[in-house]
Amino acid sequence: MSSLEMFHAVIPAGGAGTRLWPLSRASRPKFLLDLTGSGRSLLQDTWDRLLTLVPADQIHVVTGPTHAPLVQEQLPDLTGLFVEPSPRDSMPAIGLAAAVIGRRHPGAIVGSFAADQVVSDADAFGASVREAVAVAETGLITTIGIEPRSPSTAFGYIEAGEMLDVPDAPSARAVSRFVEKPDEATADDYVRSGSFSWNAGMFVARADMLLGHLARLQPHLHAGLERIALAWDTPERQPELESTWPNLTPIAIDHAIAEPVSLEGGIAVVPGVFGWDDIGDFAALHALKQSSSGDVIWVDSNGLARAEDGTTIAVVGLRDVVVVRTDDALLVTSLEHAQQVKDVPALLKRDGRTELL
Amino acid sequence: MSSLEMFHAVIPAGGAGTRLWPLSRASRPKFLLDLTGSGRSLLQDTWDRLLTLVPADQIHVVTGPTHAPLVQEQLPDLTGLFVEPSPRDSMPAIGLAAAVIGRRHPGAIVGSFAADQVVSDADAFGASVREAVAVAETGLITTIGIEPRSPSTAFGYIEAGEMLDVPDAPSARAVSRFVEKPDEATADDYVRSGSFSWNAGMFVARADMLLGHLARLQPHLHAGLERIALAWDTPERQPELESTWPNLTPIAIDHAIAEPVSLEGGIAVVPGVFGWDDIGDFAALHALKQSSSGDVIWVDSNGLARAEDGTTIAVVGLRDVVVVRTDDALLVTSLEHAQQVKDVPALLKRDGRTELL
Repeated sequence: MSSLEMFHAVIPAGGAGTRLWPLSRASRPKFLLDLTGSGRSLLQDTWDRLLTLVPADQIHVVTGPTHAPLVQEQLPDLTGLFVEPSPRDSMPAIGLAAAVIGRRHPGAIVGSFAADQVVSDADAFGASVREAVAVAETGLITTIGIEPRSPSTAFGYIEAGEMLDVPDAPSARAVSRFVEKPDEATADDYVRSGSFSWNAGMFVARADMLLGHLARLQPHLHAGLERIALAWDTPERQPELESTWPNLTPIAIDHAIAEPVSLEGGIAVVPGVFGWDDIGDFAALHALKQSSSGDVIWVDSNGLARAEDGTTIAVVGLRDVVVVRTDDALLVTSLEHAQQVKDVPALLKRDGRTELL
Repeated sequence: MSSLEMFHAVIPAGGAGTRLWPLSRASRPKFLLDLTGSGRSLLQDTWDRLLTLVPADQIHVVTGPTHAPLVQEQLPDLTGLFVEPSPRDSMPAIGLAAAVIGRRHPGAIVGSFAADQVVSDADAFGASVREAVAVAETGLITTIGIEPRSPSTAFGYIEAGEMLDVPDAPSARAVSRFVEKPDEATADDYVRSGSFSWNAGMFVARADMLLGHLARLQPHLHAGLERIALAWDTPERQPELESTWPNLTPIAIDHAIAEPVSLEGGIAVVPGVFGWDDIGDFAALHALKQSSSGDVIWVDSNGLARAEDGTTIAVVGLRDVVVVRTDDALLVTSLEHAQQVKDVPALLKRDGRTELL
């Protein structure tokens, strides 16, 4: 087992979760919600999971100014809060954290873990992170590929290639390629082949290697991040952020680094053998057996029903229904139409009804 | 046209409306609700309709002690409020009013009109009442048979027989028989025959004739009602009511008088050529084009959606859905399952959850 002494976890906490409206709201996004009934938000669950691996001062969160106070409130022991002035996708967020952490701790290894994912087995997760850190120490950008439990078309896939020979990481393999969300037949082929895993966006890398790739592949973005990192622990942090951040290239880490570097043989994958989901919509929430919360009377019915305001819901004669009540709004749909829920906030936005977004 | 000078309207205001839960509640039953969006409750609409025919002091309401204050509040000009100590079905309610009114106004004609029905054309309704009063003056118990707009299985039917020869009532016919709610094929035959109409429970009769039939057919009930009526305008009203009312036979006017007297040729029918419904369930409410109230966002959906608490409802990808939100409860079903809604208050009652009934 590798040491986690040099390991720093970074939690990008962004994303609107519009397919989880009206639970997920602009002011109260998915990662701040207790969707699983654990009594903790998805962000807090992520924090708790990482806290079994490293101390609190080695866990960092990157979020926007609107949510920063709530993040700090939910995580009172958090000392490493990065507030990005505006959302620029995942690469600037993770890159900034890596640049600052790398400057403070030469030789640091950083790992990114989204704030809104569900992991069923923290021990298995920890074992995968340890393996990934061992591989990352060798200089490879390392991802944790989730063993697929179904031929899902909701996730991107990672194709594993040759076995690597890394001490403390016996199951590490090179990544042949990353592929976008496939159609059903392709997903079926992937899962049957045994060499594909789900891309959960979990990347572990030496900070210097990550920034080195970035310097080659996205030099403008890299230069901006380095400028901000240089100013970070000085009085110049805020002015530098405000002048530089808005001009950074908005790009996902998958496109900026994972995909191009995989073509060069620079990416490794270790298996994640644990239940995992990103709860993209209410069908995913239902699949987690989080069917109902509160007082629900089912009459010849089934599906998912939640009343966040503690009132009583009665459903009569409907199958696979989705009912979500908050104090100011109500969604009624079916599991089958779960993806289409994003149309509602889109319509509200079009009509300028920001109070319901 | 007959004079309405001797005519008194009686509005029995009872009935739980359990198929309209959670709109219709024990404390706020169907007849007290503005279901049609008219700005007036069904009771108030009934009152307004009758007020085009007779002055306020010739309109009487029979209701229970729980609802009496709300009835009086909704109808500030009401002077004839009969409070029945407990529900004993329609015959004791109408019989009591007839006995009291008949004592005060010898020769009075009484007509009963349920508090929770919708009539689309007050003028046509008024014309039917005038015809019915003219027939009732001759001594016949007279009902208004609603011209069926469909072969509904939700209502009982009235079969008309020979034409009668009553001045001022050219369309009056004898009633051959009353029939209970039919199956679909039978309903179809009825409507095609042209001689069947819907039984809306509207009965018009001379008070003395009504009580005479009752004395023959339900002597125990008749004796009790006469005792109460004798005491009504004296200080003995309340003691007499409390001792006698609980022992009265609970029976509907249809079974007590309409059916047996029709076999003797003592019932007449005049046609009611106006839109009519008793809004028995949400499918009926939807059929009245009262589909939605409040702020509803339909995405590839249709049906009925109401938020009584003024919040926003979004429905995605569902056809013929029923969504009814109140401040303390929510019903989700389909038009097809509208009749089954009564199972919800039944379950609540079983579990002693009276606050939601």
